[in-house]
Amino acid sequence: MKHKNGEIWEFENNVNNTTGGVEDAHSDGGVILGLDGGTTSTICICMRVLPFSSSSKLPDPIPILARAVAGCSNHNSVGEAAARDTLEQVMAETLVKAGAKRSAVRAVCLGVSGVNHPTDQERILNWLRDIFPSHVKLYVHNDAVAALASGTYGKLHGCVLIAGTGCIAYGFTEDGQEARAAGAGPVLGDWGSGYGISAQALTAVIRANDGRGPQTMLTNSILQSLGLSSPDELIGWTYADPSWARIATLVPLVVSCAEAGDQIANRILDDAVQELALDVKAVVERLGLSGPDGNGSFPVVMVGGVLEANKKWDIGKEVTACIQKTYPKASPIRPKVEPAVGAALLAWNSLMKETSKLS
Amino acid sequence: MKHKNGEIWEFENNVNNTTGGVEDAHSDGGVILGLDGGTTSTICICMRVLPFSSSSKLPDPIPILARAVAGCSNHNSVGEAAARDTLEQVMAETLVKAGAKRSAVRAVCLGVSGVNHPTDQERILNWLRDIFPSHVKLYVHNDAVAALASGTYGKLHGCVLIAGTGCIAYGFTEDGQEARAAGAGPVLGDWGSGYGISAQALTAVIRANDGRGPQTMLTNSILQSLGLSSPDELIGWTYADPSWARIATLVPLVVSCAEAGDQIANRILDDAVQELALDVKAVVERLGLSGPDGNGSFPVVMVGGVLEANKKWDIGKEVTACIQKTYPKASPIRPKVEPAVGAALLAWNSLMKETSKLS
Repeated sequence: MKHKNGEIWEFENNVNNTTGGVEDAHSDGGVILGLDGGTTSTICICMRVLPFSSSSKLPDPIPILARAVAGCSNHNSVGEAAARDTLEQVMAETLVKAGAKRSAVRAVCLGVSGVNHPTDQERILNWLRDIFPSHVKLYVHNDAVAALASGTYGKLHGCVLIAGTGCIAYGFTEDGQEARAAGAGPVLGDWGSGYGISAQALTAVIRANDGRGPQTMLTNSILQSLGLSSPDELIGWTYADPSWARIATLVPLVVSCAEAGDQIANRILDDAVQELALDVKAVVERLGLSGPDGNGSFPVVMVGGVLEANKKWDIGKEVTACIQKTYPKASPIRPKVEPAVGAALLAWNSLMKETSKLS
Repeated sequence: MKHKNGEIWEFENNVNNTTGGVEDAHSDGGVILGLDGGTTSTICICMRVLPFSSSSKLPDPIPILARAVAGCSNHNSVGEAAARDTLEQVMAETLVKAGAKRSAVRAVCLGVSGVNHPTDQERILNWLRDIFPSHVKLYVHNDAVAALASGTYGKLHGCVLIAGTGCIAYGFTEDGQEARAAGAGPVLGDWGSGYGISAQALTAVIRANDGRGPQTMLTNSILQSLGLSSPDELIGWTYADPSWARIATLVPLVVSCAEAGDQIANRILDDAVQELALDVKAVVERLGLSGPDGNGSFPVVMVGGVLEANKKWDIGKEVTACIQKTYPKASPIRPKVEPAVGAALLAWNSLMKETSKLS
């Protein structure tokens, strides 16, 4: 439990039980940290350990003690050192707010984007072991796994579909097999993502302007929204800052044009629906989630701005319909808690399993 | 003719006629500078002014006095100051090699990528006026225009299709109207480009691996060529350095797989052919190049690695066939000189016109 950033944890000297803090994991069950680390932001929550009962029924609302937010913790984006600093600081801040020391922590579960390989996982686990006491259970996953757990309340079963700036489908069988589809970024064809939808809308405007494609309402809608006077200026706008998130912000304009009857915008959204449903179907097939007769039930957790768009043209609803055409018993879930809470519930679920094995 | 980089031109003090140099534009007709400035490299050539005759017949080979090569001169890529330094240095180096002073120059024609707007043109012209004596005729165009002129020996008429890392179609009517299509980069859907073909091949590998698409020979071919052991590693490879040119290098692998009968690779190339032909058709339609009955003759100049691929699966040949289905009298040209020579011939052509007007 040595660490170079010792000063981050100095607050622990001032924490004691009389201030309402949670000092000892054994005195009252202790706490769990759940973390959702993405490319845009990192969210950490601290949850009191829930009593383990055979029914595993969860209290509503989940008893969150504290929550803290930080920036990017994807090591592919900011480098390993900066990603670790962000992770450590946001965990410490969460414990400060909860008035709890590391000795009160029973488990930590990190869902971090950019964790794509067992070696990524192992590196972060080794680093966490230096920060937390040896009794603390540590879990590291891709952030998609935390999103799945946010819909299943900590149970790793079913498939999650995330469609925000990017998109990915990630699934687990009850016996722990996993599979993913998409999540490979725009160069590698994540066309159902917010970026994918927006890039196709921009392309449609350029094609209409060149005379290579039909006219579309997207032209006026996008130019007006970006404050540009001609489609030629889109080239400069696009490459001045080609960040995926900036381009993905155009999705609501595509939805509005589609609702207004624009055929091009409708075709772009229809294609995105097919792509997103295909991401899920690929995972379901590889894991056999629908059972041997293809008629089994399994959860499909739907997360992200593209699927949440609460509009007449409801992308999430269309994706669900498309999935259920193939798997009638697929059971869509819109999570009521955020992925960081999903991560904490995942840790709680794992703790519970280990405890029941011991008893 | 003041300029901050005066030292670049100090060589002129050592040039005189007795060393075989060309000092005075009036003594022997003088010289022309032609420049092709791209994102990868910049090429400048110095040509002796050809005699103006009514037949305008060009000598073969074109009498090139000197040639120099430098790096990127696209101001969008390296900034305006660096782009100008590159342009000035490569022009000076060419004149050094030709043994000619600026006073011997009759005309300068720059075809520079990133020149997309009259204001871009005007800025570069103003800067050139400070470098060259006032008698020098100055011309600035997009680099596609120099490529067109390389196929038409300086005449601005017809359409050029360039397909290398990127792609663009650019055309002129005989009375000076111009139009372009594509050339907007990968985010904005230049799918017929080398980048576009390669990105679709990478996407096909990811889809096959996910179970979202059919198996393809591209998987083994690309992984082996990049020294990777699994398709998952393509994500890291792609985003470690997402430069367009690096990704575009995969085109020959796609062609090989298509020649070996791979259906996915064949479909990617078929789609690219349709896209590239559509770029040309859009320009031809907007300019009315095929005449009122659609049966007129016009040159289509074909330039760039994607079109030059001298393989059994010949993309350029297929594009030509596709264009000629719509315009039977479209006349394909593979230039015998490079675009920098095209730029020089363009300047020569313009000089000739101005001279014939005066006489």
